[in-house]
Amino acid sequence: MPMLAHIRQSRLVHALQRVMRALPAQSPMPILSGLYMEARPDGVTFVCSGFGLRMESELAAQPDDVRIETPGTVVIPAKQAYELVRKLPDGPVSFEAGADGRTVTIRTDATVCRLWSMSPDEYPAASSLEPDRHRIRLRSDELKTMIRQVAFAVSPSETRPILTGVSCRFDGGSVKLVASDGIRLASRQSPPGSGGDGEPLEVVVPGHHLNQLMKTLEDDGQAVTDISVRGARIVFASRDWSLHSALLEGAYPPTDNVVPRSVSARIGIGTAPFLQALERVGLLAGEGSIVRLATETTDDGRFLRLWSDTAELGDIVERLPIFGSEGGDFAVSFNGKYMLEIVRSIDCGALHLQFAGPLRPIALRPAEDGDRLFYVLTPIRTHV
Amino acid sequence: MPMLAHIRQSRLVHALQRVMRALPAQSPMPILSGLYMEARPDGVTFVCSGFGLRMESELAAQPDDVRIETPGTVVIPAKQAYELVRKLPDGPVSFEAGADGRTVTIRTDATVCRLWSMSPDEYPAASSLEPDRHRIRLRSDELKTMIRQVAFAVSPSETRPILTGVSCRFDGGSVKLVASDGIRLASRQSPPGSGGDGEPLEVVVPGHHLNQLMKTLEDDGQAVTDISVRGARIVFASRDWSLHSALLEGAYPPTDNVVPRSVSARIGIGTAPFLQALERVGLLAGEGSIVRLATETTDDGRFLRLWSDTAELGDIVERLPIFGSEGGDFAVSFNGKYMLEIVRSIDCGALHLQFAGPLRPIALRPAEDGDRLFYVLTPIRTHV
Repeated sequence: MPMLAHIRQSRLVHALQRVMRALPAQSPMPILSGLYMEARPDGVTFVCSGFGLRMESELAAQPDDVRIETPGTVVIPAKQAYELVRKLPDGPVSFEAGADGRTVTIRTDATVCRLWSMSPDEYPAASSLEPDRHRIRLRSDELKTMIRQVAFAVSPSETRPILTGVSCRFDGGSVKLVASDGIRLASRQSPPGSGGDGEPLEVVVPGHHLNQLMKTLEDDGQAVTDISVRGARIVFASRDWSLHSALLEGAYPPTDNVVPRSVSARIGIGTAPFLQALERVGLLAGEGSIVRLATETTDDGRFLRLWSDTAELGDIVERLPIFGSEGGDFAVSFNGKYMLEIVRSIDCGALHLQFAGPLRPIALRPAEDGDRLFYVLTPIRTHV
Repeated sequence: MPMLAHIRQSRLVHALQRVMRALPAQSPMPILSGLYMEARPDGVTFVCSGFGLRMESELAAQPDDVRIETPGTVVIPAKQAYELVRKLPDGPVSFEAGADGRTVTIRTDATVCRLWSMSPDEYPAASSLEPDRHRIRLRSDELKTMIRQVAFAVSPSETRPILTGVSCRFDGGSVKLVASDGIRLASRQSPPGSGGDGEPLEVVVPGHHLNQLMKTLEDDGQAVTDISVRGARIVFASRDWSLHSALLEGAYPPTDNVVPRSVSARIGIGTAPFLQALERVGLLAGEGSIVRLATETTDDGRFLRLWSDTAELGDIVERLPIFGSEGGDFAVSFNGKYMLEIVRSIDCGALHLQFAGPLRPIALRPAEDGDRLFYVLTPIRTHV
């Protein structure tokens, strides 16, 4: 069918960049290599989708930047269309489909590019609008922080597919995200949002899709995101884009008892010095990434020692001041890379480390306001 | 042997970053994974070397930043030492070797790292100082530009090993760099430098080593680099570093007759519009990267057309204004990626394209001051 739309290049790039995040690197279905583009009198919708993820981006009609002369729908090669638009100078870009619908011509003053159109009828439709099972609204920047603090902890292995996802527990106007690979666990409760319609509900969202969402979420402090669970999908929608993700099937393992209830010792430590010490001590931690930790009490006060060694290279010791300790001295070993990822995500000036015994999980929380975020890391048993 | 030196972290990082460029990714000789460090009363020398490339970096003794308490020489694991130094806070870092010379301790207030030392006696010495065969001095920023304009054109294939190098022809106080993979050729004459001692001489330097040199050369407009050919090596030396490269064996093929002497047409074109058009037209040029070019004369003036197509995706046409043309219309096809790399390197507001026939090499030069730099690209024979 025919189509004629004129869109400013800078607006186009922004809209296409978002949907490209859902384009599958390779797909057994050729239609999924396409960019779906629907021009209506009130604006243009772009869609890419694949593997349970769908991204839609909207450009509302505007006299200067987005003009629709003839409504129509096409599907063109997504990668080439995006790369071309990126390399065009800022200014008007026209998209024109002939009456036969076989080609779409992308045109500026200097460039004329004809791309073969695939059939829009073959493009998968958005899932039908099943009734909401739950719906809440959160600030986009807060949702972005929550995902960054949690999603890194999912399992990279398909051995237990449910652990490749992030558990999202909706209860009233807030949501709690939990991710774990069995060795470490990250848990983050949202600040109170608005809405919260529906029964309390737990769903599991692929971690990979939340990472794409994180890149899309605005962090200007103004934008809000509506989250709704509909049937077997979750939809995240902002003013001019939406991300639709299939849910993982199966129940997420219970995590309420992961943090040991008994505490044998607790220390406070500066997050930045701890992070830098972990980065250095990791250099000699070898393939197993084993880092040892112990507290020590000297005439100068209490300190945390971190150390590691590699037989062929050497050893390294770091020493950091402790503040606000409870309980006696203790020693434990852990995976240094896992600890590093946790401490990089914790976003606070100081943190608390909490121990229940040499082989019991270590808990970490921000020293201030530590009710909404915590991490758990299982120690490594060592013989030295 | 014992050693004790105190060096400021920011100075250390800078010195080590340079020598790390010569560290082989993998080496059959364990000693070459080491960082050679020699502390003398007047300063410290760091060395990494491998595969015909050696980088030395100097830090002169200074009361605040570089203090040598006990001279000595050690060889420590280069990668770990560099990564550790990079991750230390700015401030004094001490290097201490015990009397047995088995370990080197790198120490700051918070960090104590012991690295096993290898034997400095096993570390390869710099080649003995054979007499200079030629020596000139160039401005470092000009040498950097010359290498960037030429070294990309070397052959990536070892089929003809001599073509993986850059020919350097010394004659009096200037040097001409030439690189070619047999399809394209880049040639750049230096501005007059100083020195120029010795007979006219042609040597061939591995392109990979010149790329490492390019990253090292200062572009502040102040620094100078001394180039000397000694035996089978070339040495590039600035105030506080030197790069030693083995020469490639064999004669570089003659290139003086590569540019066709007869010219059937010549056009001028803006470099930036040509570059952007090549970037876009390359998107549909397919695996063979075939781009077609033709001039056309219309009522509006003369234009250059560039186009390409991919059967499964579509086609693209670009149209650019021509200025200052000589000769009639012509058409030619070429490898778009090769042309793109040439136009990215030419550094000028406008360039001249020169043709001698549809299958004769295309020559490119800057429109202004085009005596010192030119490129040649062999066309592709097409049947359309």
